[in-house]
Amino acid sequence: MAEREFDAIVIGAGPAGEVCAGRLADGGLEVALVEQELVGGECSYYACMPSKALLRPAELLAEVQRVPGAREMISGELDPDVVLRRRDEVIHDRDDASQLPWLEARGVGLIRGHASFSGERTLTVGREALRARRAVVVATGTAAAFPPIEGLAEARPWTNREATTAKRVPSRLLILGGGVVGVEMAQAWSSLGSSVTLVEAEDRLLAGEEPFASEQVAAGLGRGGVEIRTGARATAASRGQGGQVSLGLDGGEELRGDELLVAVGRRPRSDEIGLEAAGVAAGGYLEVDDQLRVGGSQWLYAIGDVNGRALLTHMGKYQGRIAADHILGRDVAATCDKLGSPRVVFTEPQVAAVGRTLAAAGEDGLDVRAVDVETAANAGASFVGRNAPGTSRLVVDEDHRVIVGATFVGPEVAESLHAATIAVTAAIPLEQLWHAVPTFPTRSELWLRLLEEYGL
Amino acid sequence: MAEREFDAIVIGAGPAGEVCAGRLADGGLEVALVEQELVGGECSYYACMPSKALLRPAELLAEVQRVPGAREMISGELDPDVVLRRRDEVIHDRDDASQLPWLEARGVGLIRGHASFSGERTLTVGREALRARRAVVVATGTAAAFPPIEGLAEARPWTNREATTAKRVPSRLLILGGGVVGVEMAQAWSSLGSSVTLVEAEDRLLAGEEPFASEQVAAGLGRGGVEIRTGARATAASRGQGGQVSLGLDGGEELRGDELLVAVGRRPRSDEIGLEAAGVAAGGYLEVDDQLRVGGSQWLYAIGDVNGRALLTHMGKYQGRIAADHILGRDVAATCDKLGSPRVVFTEPQVAAVGRTLAAAGEDGLDVRAVDVETAANAGASFVGRNAPGTSRLVVDEDHRVIVGATFVGPEVAESLHAATIAVTAAIPLEQLWHAVPTFPTRSELWLRLLEEYGL
Repeated sequence: MAEREFDAIVIGAGPAGEVCAGRLADGGLEVALVEQELVGGECSYYACMPSKALLRPAELLAEVQRVPGAREMISGELDPDVVLRRRDEVIHDRDDASQLPWLEARGVGLIRGHASFSGERTLTVGREALRARRAVVVATGTAAAFPPIEGLAEARPWTNREATTAKRVPSRLLILGGGVVGVEMAQAWSSLGSSVTLVEAEDRLLAGEEPFASEQVAAGLGRGGVEIRTGARATAASRGQGGQVSLGLDGGEELRGDELLVAVGRRPRSDEIGLEAAGVAAGGYLEVDDQLRVGGSQWLYAIGDVNGRALLTHMGKYQGRIAADHILGRDVAATCDKLGSPRVVFTEPQVAAVGRTLAAAGEDGLDVRAVDVETAANAGASFVGRNAPGTSRLVVDEDHRVIVGATFVGPEVAESLHAATIAVTAAIPLEQLWHAVPTFPTRSELWLRLLEEYGL
Repeated sequence: MAEREFDAIVIGAGPAGEVCAGRLADGGLEVALVEQELVGGECSYYACMPSKALLRPAELLAEVQRVPGAREMISGELDPDVVLRRRDEVIHDRDDASQLPWLEARGVGLIRGHASFSGERTLTVGREALRARRAVVVATGTAAAFPPIEGLAEARPWTNREATTAKRVPSRLLILGGGVVGVEMAQAWSSLGSSVTLVEAEDRLLAGEEPFASEQVAAGLGRGGVEIRTGARATAASRGQGGQVSLGLDGGEELRGDELLVAVGRRPRSDEIGLEAAGVAAGGYLEVDDQLRVGGSQWLYAIGDVNGRALLTHMGKYQGRIAADHILGRDVAATCDKLGSPRVVFTEPQVAAVGRTLAAAGEDGLDVRAVDVETAANAGASFVGRNAPGTSRLVVDEDHRVIVGATFVGPEVAESLHAATIAVTAAIPLEQLWHAVPTFPTRSELWLRLLEEYGL
């Protein structure tokens, strides 16, 4: 078997792998990118992109309903078929051809197939043997995790993949798990006509976010007709002969639906590529340092979901840039994710957050104080997100007078987040933020309200 | 005539005056706020607020048209009557009662009437004599300026006041001036059905912004049916017996309309309050230092439009805060406006900018480089502002590797500006901005594209 050599080999062509491979090639290296499914990864076909395609029309129509002069022009109900067709367009009907020119333009060699390590820096992909002169980057991502619930696998549940690509609107949808996937899919399918029941074992949705975010998203889903069962443990699942799914809860109650989405977390795809042959213990998230090297290795990197640092497309891409730069010999380190990665939940209202929650900052031993205002308590909200409930919070590190966390809850707050991301990442003192004047009449004046509330 | 004493007297209850008075009262001072028209000022009734009320429905419907799944639900044309009613609601039918509780809660004494200086720190308002123990703050704003065009006054033109509060949609509207007021009103009234012709003497609209912003706004207005005449000088105006307005252009052409809006700039209202009696030369913008003191005075301040530093509501409010803090004995200085104030033009596309344009930075002797990307060249733009043209630019100071200017052109970019305002104001090095990761899939990834384009 002839061996082909590259400077670097990237395994997994999701966003992290693509960005890393492209940047390595831009840096002058000869790069192979190995992909066994679709170039573009989970994000492009089964996560971020189709979910936003499903969510956006209803989100926009909710905004239209809030604006007199516009709302009079809306007629009828959302047509699910049109939305599903647009979703298919966004995911290119799961054809990755449109992703290839970007790689080709950079001279990245795409190798389709399953990669398996055969030793240090060496891999096989089908009948091909590959050797990396400098580095191998693992970017294999995650898959949906299944909790140990009796009968679950046999009940043929949906994962994020089926939930984002389904061709029909299920009449009744059960969702197990109130994290980001669970709440976004509850929002999307209920807006398209499903009767949705959401089951979460914790006592609130989005347990990692500020409590008010959990409450406001739950209230929004409730207004949309979603039935929310927090503090509820599923104990058994089954699919009957008529195709109906049952989910048994601790306590004896049984919920019924046409489909059951399991969204209780992810498992790293680190055990499918023969890492043992490279001398690395496989299974679990691959632990990396701030240069994204696995276990102190000089040649093995892991980026994106598979290292477990921050399961977010933009953070995977960030790590891809950092890893590429390090492989290219630059002195770099990933710092953003350790401060608390920026994140947006595209529900109605949205949750846009960065850094630590008040509770997390306290647990980290920081001397913090939170200031809260209503997201809509400014003139800009007369025009956008009008009258919609939602809270905005800054978490201030009192010792250094910098923001270590920010959470905005409200309609269409996603684009408001980057200001906070800059403030948290660059640790800008409050006194300097005070001179960054928000424009009137935009909703960014909530920054003014927050700083005034703090006492500036 | 009995004299009433206050710690501070603020003349003019527009946003700048209100904010200043409120902050002084919050700081423990006894404060009088004098207003001869409406509490809330030009902004609340004749500028920012009604203009956005007129613009928002059409802006939102333009976005709906870009989103498959939503656009199918729009029927018919915008109903101008509904939009005009909503505008009236936003300006409270020009009743300022809703503004009063905010002042009352702070214990600010509102005095209605025309203020005129009678000496240093002393004023008369009608039959009342007022004395300020500590400071007098002039916040009288600006009014529409009229160019010396033959017959203009007699032609009874609209100013911003009539243009924002008109009760009927003029069938044909002539607009003189292609600055912010001119382009926003062209956008608003053309979207409501007016046939609009916009006349600008300069060779482009929005002459202070980046050239691509001018071009893209002109193209957007053009798509909306606005006829734009740049490089055209008006020489004469008249109103005929039928009520029709004529505007004669240099070269002999004559334009006809039902109304004529004059929007060629502002004049400071500094000559109406007897400043001579306080020993200050009146007329023109009142020159102030960074503490907003007029001509080195220890007691006289001028904030907002009347000092000419930055004719923007948010900058007036900022100056109001700075002036109040200085009067309260704090060591403060206005710095934000000197870097180039943040500003948003609410056309379709919008222009959101802060700091210097490339040309202005060059004129200031900075060694700068501009990087440009398409505002829509990111995944977030699949969902918001889809397929809409627009450019985004950063102007980088190469000596200090900081951003000294940013301009975003595109639909609904207003909320994206604050990130740039923070970056410019706090002078954050590019290397730090690189670690502020924009969230996927939001349009804030244009930051990533811009920094990559720069070479990071």
